[in-house]
Amino acid sequence: MALSQSYSRQIKASVLHGAKDLRVENRSIDPPLPNELQVAVRATGLCGSDLHYYKHYKNGDIIVREPMSLGHESAGVVVAVGSSVNGFAVGDKVALEVGLPCGACERCREGRYNICKGMQFRSSAKAFPHAQGTLQERINHPAAWCHKLPENVSLDLGALLEPLGVAIHASRRAQLPPNATVLVFGAGAVGLLVAAMAKLSGAGTVIIADIDAGRVDFAVKNGFAHVPFAVQLRRGETTEQMLDIARDTAAGIGKLNKSGGQGPVGEVDAVFECTGVPSCLQAAIFATRNGGRIMLIGMGTPVQTLPISAAALREVDLVGVFRYANTYPTGIEVVSKSGPDYPDFSKLVTHRYSGLESAVEAFDMAGRTKDESGKLVLKVVMEVEEDDRARL
Amino acid sequence: MALSQSYSRQIKASVLHGAKDLRVENRSIDPPLPNELQVAVRATGLCGSDLHYYKHYKNGDIIVREPMSLGHESAGVVVAVGSSVNGFAVGDKVALEVGLPCGACERCREGRYNICKGMQFRSSAKAFPHAQGTLQERINHPAAWCHKLPENVSLDLGALLEPLGVAIHASRRAQLPPNATVLVFGAGAVGLLVAAMAKLSGAGTVIIADIDAGRVDFAVKNGFAHVPFAVQLRRGETTEQMLDIARDTAAGIGKLNKSGGQGPVGEVDAVFECTGVPSCLQAAIFATRNGGRIMLIGMGTPVQTLPISAAALREVDLVGVFRYANTYPTGIEVVSKSGPDYPDFSKLVTHRYSGLESAVEAFDMAGRTKDESGKLVLKVVMEVEEDDRARL
Amino acid sequence: MALSQSYSRQIKASVLHGAKDLRVENRSIDPPLPNELQVAVRATGLCGSDLHYYKHYKNGDIIVREPMSLGHESAGVVVAVGSSVNGFAVGDKVALEVGLPCGACERCREGRYNICKGMQFRSSAKAFPHAQGTLQERINHPAAWCHKLPENVSLDLGALLEPLGVAIHASRRAQLPPNATVLVFGAGAVGLLVAAMAKLSGAGTVIIADIDAGRVDFAVKNGFAHVPFAVQLRRGETTEQMLDIARDTAAGIGKLNKSGGQGPVGEVDAVFECTGVPSCLQAAIFATRNGGRIMLIGMGTPVQTLPISAAALREVDLVGVFRYANTYPTGIEVVSKSGPDYPDFSKLVTHRYSGLESAVEAFDMAGRTKDESGKLVLKVVMEVEEDDRARL
Amino acid sequence: MALSQSYSRQIKASVLHGAKDLRVENRSIDPPLPNELQVAVRATGLCGSDLHYYKHYKNGDIIVREPMSLGHESAGVVVAVGSSVNGFAVGDKVALEVGLPCGACERCREGRYNICKGMQFRSSAKAFPHAQGTLQERINHPAAWCHKLPENVSLDLGALLEPLGVAIHASRRAQLPPNATVLVFGAGAVGLLVAAMAKLSGAGTVIIADIDAGRVDFAVKNGFAHVPFAVQLRRGETTEQMLDIARDTAAGIGKLNKSGGQGPVGEVDAVFECTGVPSCLQAAIFATRNGGRIMLIGMGTPVQTLPISAAALREVDLVGVFRYANTYPTGIEVVSKSGPDYPDFSKLVTHRYSGLESAVEAFDMAGRTKDESGKLVLKVVMEVEEDDRARL
Repeated sequence: MALSQSYSRQIKASVLHGAKDLRVENRSIDPPLPNELQVAVRATGLCGSDLHYYKHYKNGDIIVREPMSLGHESAGVVVAVGSSVNGFAVGDKVALEVGLPCGACERCREGRYNICKGMQFRSSAKAFPHAQGTLQERINHPAAWCHKLPENVSLDLGALLEPLGVAIHASRRAQLPPNATVLVFGAGAVGLLVAAMAKLSGAGTVIIADIDAGRVDFAVKNGFAHVPFAVQLRRGETTEQMLDIARDTAAGIGKLNKSGGQGPVGEVDAVFECTGVPSCLQAAIFATRNGGRIMLIGMGTPVQTLPISAAALREVDLVGVFRYANTYPTGIEVVSKSGPDYPDFSKLVTHRYSGLESAVEAFDMAGRTKDESGKLVLKVVMEVEEDDRARL
Repeated sequence: MALSQSYSRQIKASVLHGAKDLRVENRSIDPPLPNELQVAVRATGLCGSDLHYYKHYKNGDIIVREPMSLGHESAGVVVAVGSSVNGFAVGDKVALEVGLPCGACERCREGRYNICKGMQFRSSAKAFPHAQGTLQERINHPAAWCHKLPENVSLDLGALLEPLGVAIHASRRAQLPPNATVLVFGAGAVGLLVAAMAKLSGAGTVIIADIDAGRVDFAVKNGFAHVPFAVQLRRGETTEQMLDIARDTAAGIGKLNKSGGQGPVGEVDAVFECTGVPSCLQAAIFATRNGGRIMLIGMGTPVQTLPISAAALREVDLVGVFRYANTYPTGIEVVSKSGPDYPDFSKLVTHRYSGLESAVEAFDMAGRTKDESGKLVLKVVMEVEEDDRARL
Repeated sequence: MALSQSYSRQIKASVLHGAKDLRVENRSIDPPLPNELQVAVRATGLCGSDLHYYKHYKNGDIIVREPMSLGHESAGVVVAVGSSVNGFAVGDKVALEVGLPCGACERCREGRYNICKGMQFRSSAKAFPHAQGTLQERINHPAAWCHKLPENVSLDLGALLEPLGVAIHASRRAQLPPNATVLVFGAGAVGLLVAAMAKLSGAGTVIIADIDAGRVDFAVKNGFAHVPFAVQLRRGETTEQMLDIARDTAAGIGKLNKSGGQGPVGEVDAVFECTGVPSCLQAAIFATRNGGRIMLIGMGTPVQTLPISAAALREVDLVGVFRYANTYPTGIEVVSKSGPDYPDFSKLVTHRYSGLESAVEAFDMAGRTKDESGKLVLKVVMEVEEDDRARL
Repeated sequence: MALSQSYSRQIKASVLHGAKDLRVENRSIDPPLPNELQVAVRATGLCGSDLHYYKHYKNGDIIVREPMSLGHESAGVVVAVGSSVNGFAVGDKVALEVGLPCGACERCREGRYNICKGMQFRSSAKAFPHAQGTLQERINHPAAWCHKLPENVSLDLGALLEPLGVAIHASRRAQLPPNATVLVFGAGAVGLLVAAMAKLSGAGTVIIADIDAGRVDFAVKNGFAHVPFAVQLRRGETTEQMLDIARDTAAGIGKLNKSGGQGPVGEVDAVFECTGVPSCLQAAIFATRNGGRIMLIGMGTPVQTLPISAAALREVDLVGVFRYANTYPTGIEVVSKSGPDYPDFSKLVTHRYSGLESAVEAFDMAGRTKDESGKLVLKVVMEVEEDDRARL
């Protein structure tokens, strides 16, 4: 079952050398180690953090210190199998779980490997040397972190499993009661996945809020959420003005009616905050019922002014969500299902670019909210088609 | 807002005086106390415990010590409002939560009032004097334990909220992970409600098992569950034979395929045991994955021979489910919804009897699995129509 | 068993009429209702919220709208028993749980009555008419919310059960793993009780931090905590300076050694923030290990600037703690114990004042950190001695 | 930092070839792999499962299929360090966590590696080839599963960390509320450790029950528990007689007084069943309060007749405890502490045998409850002293 090649080969990789300095280069790749697969990466979704690195050569406080390939939402095809690997064969479709935790610390051992301090996460510059991202023709990756895809799951969907993992992890940490009323701030790709997973996790009413009415309409029309809420954009000068606006937003949510004429929505049991914008988190605090939970998902303003007493005095808890742990098997089941309960996840992939050379164009599109035709930009996927037969 | 009558009146009540000795009698009812509603009970589902009392004048160890009205799954219409009650008016439809906990013990205060030792539960002979059941034309009941029904919820569905409460409580205690695979033993009314709530609580695959193939087909065709499993009835002589049969049953479940050609079902994360039959609980233990949970819902054989090590050594936990706490608001939301995700709960009411005089006939039907036409007997509802205008 | 008086009587009450306008007045008290006890309040601890009301006639946003008695940490002696009350007799010592929740909302029914929206809490001006506080000679109070004290528990300790309830509630919500390392910010009365309860709840190492070295020394010497940490007071001008100071504080905690030469303390699993001061919560975020919890206990600055990403990205959760629910039975057991594991809770009562007339003096002392002799001011207790025999 | 030897060497091993057929043999040991340590095993506690294998060449259903060394409660000294190992040096004292999980399954990834189906656990014959036990002079073991011991922790205590892990795991799964009342059935080594950990995890009252009054006295005198309960041995013929006896036992526990004249013990929140004997589990069910938990720790009768309704109807949950996960760091902290709260764990080691040749004698002692002098037999430790200098 275990086939392998025994010599190095040349591949192409998209490598970031500075802000907006993305180059396609040749790299050499060794045969896979005994526990590894060699995977031809075929589909990679572009993520907000990739975009930050692309634009600024840093992401928040994390500065790139050596040329680095971007990309971490990826699926591909197995092209070589390490000598001690079982259960995989050349030609298998796999989704890549690109973060390799240390496996030995207390967090890893208690199953929270996403917050392992020793995590090596591809396309993140936090560890040094940086773990290179997946915008390469091929990578070697431990088989234990490759997840085989069933026939009916496309590589696009395989790539979506990474942000879907965030949504699954968020749903778990939210501990939703049956039939919960849930509010999602942000109707981008992550917000939509989060809304869908809340729905699939038993939320009875999922409200989705965004300043872009087109996005919330998309969410409801395509079965990702139940109730749309277009947030009116208002800017406050002072903290008190901002908090008043946040209270107004929360009050507006409280007055929503359920679609289908089913009357008012109930109190909000949990908010999934996917924007990282202070005004959203402020509104989230005011919108959540006593004893509810706010899931902090969006990475945005790192230091925020918050009405913390309005949370604490009502036991509204602020719960962090960082990446995911142990979500791929669940994610694969979810995207391989269809039926009236299930949204069509493939609709999230709104734009595709072919070939590593098109990465600059793809990143430019990923930075926009709509394309020139006015179509929403949700998830941009890079497709890489290696001429396998020639190379093998 | 608070209207009340100031004099006693005569009502009819169905009263059990001994095994199968059910009589319709006149009783006097006082006006409601300041905190009570007087409710004309219009719909009452018959439950297995009612049937036990009817047949044996006892239920397990609990012996009836004075004439007692049966019935506790009920909805009706408010006919008088206590002087200090707010939020209710004559004519409101209400579902009755018939168990009155002490409100002061540690269990009550921590929100687990269902296991309050001082519980007064209508139609249960555990407390003395017995709390009289709802098979009466009218009862006085604390407004705090009456739940107003929306327009679109029928009194039949209002009565179903009681067994649905068990299902909601079971789902909460099960702590299902998103997309869980769930197995329900028993496709009677409770099993079907439990299956539906597991589905609505985020279970990705709900298998329903029963020795009656018609019931499991009913469950799947009507959207209560995903995958049918007809249990083959085999009887073992010795404990070891019984355990072998249970292992076979579990193995059969492990080989199921999902409907829709979606391949094998995953490992069973949780079993909801709704039969109380030892062979089912034995099979449940073998069928549950390492670290899963078994919810003990069915009241049946009180002392059972169990492969307890097969549970303990794999950390399969046995979790009790007794009645419900704090489920009515959720239940009302659930039954008032419709859509592709929601089963048609009203289909559970398969037989209706009108008038307290028909109670004997109704209990006889409730004791059967099919009626003379071969139709499944799931929930039998007693309907009582008081001539309101004449009496008020 | 149920004795009662049948006529009203005159009592004295300490009543706040405006900022620092505290008057001793005569009030009339009715006999207890059937479900009530009449309690001669003998000991009342003064709390920070009382002090706010006293100084400003408001507490945060909550403005006093009618004359109000202060006081809610109280114990006393039963002087009359309502006609339907069981289990109490005249002369019983009781601790008063002064918050009366509605008992019917979802929060109440799930056991989180502390966040009931309809809560009537004595000496809080949130509800109107205000629920009058306990700085009165007698009050009528529902027996269900009076907790009988054993012989060996003094009325002072009975009064301490109220803030101890906060500590117990915080410990429960903290879900401490066995042998946890815990950090408490604030070594006032609440911080000390919180530290002690964390210790008694299985924390292996309790660090206590305060800017007052005397307080942390008191905490460790008297068995409330294990490791002292005197926070150096530094003020930052800018947010970034403040965060740097907070990082320094956290780093200092990371370098602590356990007492007894047992080497460095482990990572901080949970912080109990009892100050409400932004710099403490900022330091708490930096000091907590990945995946830990911060309990928000101190009521202070309502809107704070927080390094929220430093929490969210490490799944450090911010968990609100508001008052308490279902803590008195546990509290009574805790204060009635003694032994090497138990601190001497009575040492928290550092100052006593006798008679309602001394309330102004008592509040002045409660506003200080040390008295004129240099002794720490922790808990100030008002003692009221009614001449019982003459009156009964 | 990484030292290693580069050649194989001869060691002695105690090897079981059949029931009671234990031989000391020469084996060859390779140098440690890059990720391994070579450890000279110095102290090994004998466990009940070892004893079963020794006596019957099987353990329950698990039959030994090839000669196997016993022993899995071990500590030793590092004698060689694999080339890629950091943080260890020759001469370090280490405790061995002898179960190697697969690291890739869902259970492993969620932190419950103790119930990994692919677990390779030394001295268990479940996997084949069997993972050889620690009754050998030296073993190679992955460094990630070796836990460095501080100076002040003896190798005996290091060996005790294995059963202490069970106790820590049980305490975690028990989710004890602060000040819980706990009942431990069984006052052998595991029961004593479980009692101690419950106490250290915040239980306010720990009752310990055993048919051997000497053991429960030992437990209380040495600070492992608070309240002794000597179970009277009575045998029932019929199931109903057995259940009556169990009810009597539970009633007896309900009437206990706390030591120190502190009055009756409260309701039992949790039982830790460490015997595996049906009458104990039956009594545990009757003794636990409504809504409490029973931890199934003792491995005994695999199929038991249980009053399951008496558990389910009161929501008394039966919770499995199988080995441990992620407990060693906590265990090391616990045994390295001393003080009034801490029992002297070293007193558990009641008998020591030196040299692999003494294994038969040691197993004989481990099978007894008292030695010839009448001293309790709790934990028997095999000490192996390799002549290090000569060999290195």
